[in-house]
Amino acid sequence: LDVEVMEEARGRWDQLTKPLGSLGKLEEIGIRLAGIQGTVLPSVERRAVVVMCGDHGVTAEGVSAYPSAVTGLMMQNFSNGRAAVNVLARQMGADVHVVDIGSACEDDIPNIVREKVKPGTDNMAVGPAMTREEAVRALEVGMGFARKLSSEGVQVIALGEMGIGNTTPSSAIASVLTSHPLAELVGRGTGIEESVLPHKGHVIQRALEVNQPNPDDAVDVLAKVGGLEIAGLAGVVLGAASEGVAVLVDGVIAAAAALVAYRVEPKVGPYLFASHLSQEPAHRILLEAMELSPMLHLEMRLGEGTGAVLAMPLLQSATRLVQEMATFADLGL
Amino acid sequence: LDVEVMEEARGRWDQLTKPLGSLGKLEEIGIRLAGIQGTVLPSVERRAVVVMCGDHGVTAEGVSAYPSAVTGLMMQNFSNGRAAVNVLARQMGADVHVVDIGSACEDDIPNIVREKVKPGTDNMAVGPAMTREEAVRALEVGMGFARKLSSEGVQVIALGEMGIGNTTPSSAIASVLTSHPLAELVGRGTGIEESVLPHKGHVIQRALEVNQPNPDDAVDVLAKVGGLEIAGLAGVVLGAASEGVAVLVDGVIAAAAALVAYRVEPKVGPYLFASHLSQEPAHRILLEAMELSPMLHLEMRLGEGTGAVLAMPLLQSATRLVQEMATFADLGL
Repeated sequence: LDVEVMEEARGRWDQLTKPLGSLGKLEEIGIRLAGIQGTVLPSVERRAVVVMCGDHGVTAEGVSAYPSAVTGLMMQNFSNGRAAVNVLARQMGADVHVVDIGSACEDDIPNIVREKVKPGTDNMAVGPAMTREEAVRALEVGMGFARKLSSEGVQVIALGEMGIGNTTPSSAIASVLTSHPLAELVGRGTGIEESVLPHKGHVIQRALEVNQPNPDDAVDVLAKVGGLEIAGLAGVVLGAASEGVAVLVDGVIAAAAALVAYRVEPKVGPYLFASHLSQEPAHRILLEAMELSPMLHLEMRLGEGTGAVLAMPLLQSATRLVQEMATFADLGL
Repeated sequence: LDVEVMEEARGRWDQLTKPLGSLGKLEEIGIRLAGIQGTVLPSVERRAVVVMCGDHGVTAEGVSAYPSAVTGLMMQNFSNGRAAVNVLARQMGADVHVVDIGSACEDDIPNIVREKVKPGTDNMAVGPAMTREEAVRALEVGMGFARKLSSEGVQVIALGEMGIGNTTPSSAIASVLTSHPLAELVGRGTGIEESVLPHKGHVIQRALEVNQPNPDDAVDVLAKVGGLEIAGLAGVVLGAASEGVAVLVDGVIAAAAALVAYRVEPKVGPYLFASHLSQEPAHRILLEAMELSPMLHLEMRLGEGTGAVLAMPLLQSATRLVQEMATFADLGL
């Protein structure tokens, strides 16, 4: 980040006609965007959401309320422009990019980018979800996609995902990378019954015991107990940060992906912006591990990037306020 | 509210392609807007923010970081379209209406609606801020203004205000109407020093002892320890609710006004939507007294309606999701 420009931006915020610091997080966002873009007048007018899709072998253990086939059905829904994230992205002026990085769906669906590393992970409860090579390939897909968006002028990317079963690997990643006990990290995902929660916890426990992921090697964690869409999003974070593109983190899956990227390369930290606080318990813990504080408290748990897209106008507000507000000097003070 | 339409709306949300309830507060907002407008497809395309302006005799006690003259300067800033609320309202597609209901400013500023009940309240630390008749007149100004906006097609009104010193009467109102101790309710407002806080608390304590406002008579509280802009906003709430217009509550001053209206007429409750959670400590307590839960956590403390305007896209999202998302039947499920 450009520290000098950030100082200049802070000085400008302090001259605007409002009590010092009274715009709270919007000021912090504006100053950070200034540092990212190297200008006191940053812009987030070019916005995109990347929805990485993948399936999960661990659904064989009965950890999800829906079957894997729903991942493909939802890709069709994205393709038709009628899922929640499409509606919100239209409202917020963001392009939607859906990437099949690892779904089990074999259909050729229009408007879906095909970058399939493999058709779903293996069951992490009995062995690694994928090989290290597969994880690295998925990371590279994400990095390449972020670089492509950057070359097209995109200034902020929201992290979205679709993958039946993917709160299970997200909680597993959170457990290894934050050292919090599983009991604090396992939630109901898309809506399993309260009574299934202990089973979901046992499955994750088994995956950790079978695979012994190394907490000091985030790529090892990603490969053994992660997911292809999670790896893809971690790659998007790495690629975006390297190109000076801001990243809006969504819910628990996107936050797990962001934390993997952050552990691989801590310099991505200042490029990350939290959006909402999900109902999934691991989410808050993952955000705290990156010192991120969510702006929206909407009790959502949908994924797809919906929470991140909802936060886009707030980033835009930060850029507009510094551009358009009068200064004290303008008022003759 | 139309309970049948709300049931129908709930049924429709449950058919959308997402896990049940996974859009959290947006679903609750959508269902409530349906009940308010009497249609499963409500609209918030016509939006306005009303900024009521007033001055406060209690500033003579040294409770504010700025002199009363700043109220007039900010009215000029609103008139020029260059205050924070103007910038945000332009972004969010809302009209800004600034009403001088009680400022000490004698200038005739363009674009400001003149409905001055009197040029600032009296010092509540030595006697009532205003007479009951003046409070009722200010309430009527607000009610009339809300009805006028409704007749022009406005579907949601954000509550905004400007008035140097107005966190002091807001904390006083909160103290009387919620029975919480003053120590939990007094904050730094626009930015007084931490060391001035006890003095601000003593001044409020004195105002309560001198005036003995009756907690069971919200208009008495409003007159004795309130403000003209607070009364105006309470009137806006009463007028808006009576016309079936949704109201977005802003920070601590708007919340104090909303609670006055809620105590005068509890039926306004379902028309109220919380927007952000301010840094001012009384805000959370006032919102809880109306069972409102804020959506935005931005650590703001600016007023003007800025937080309420920032929440407008979220109401719009609720209406668009129910209009545009596919149902399970559309996906063949």
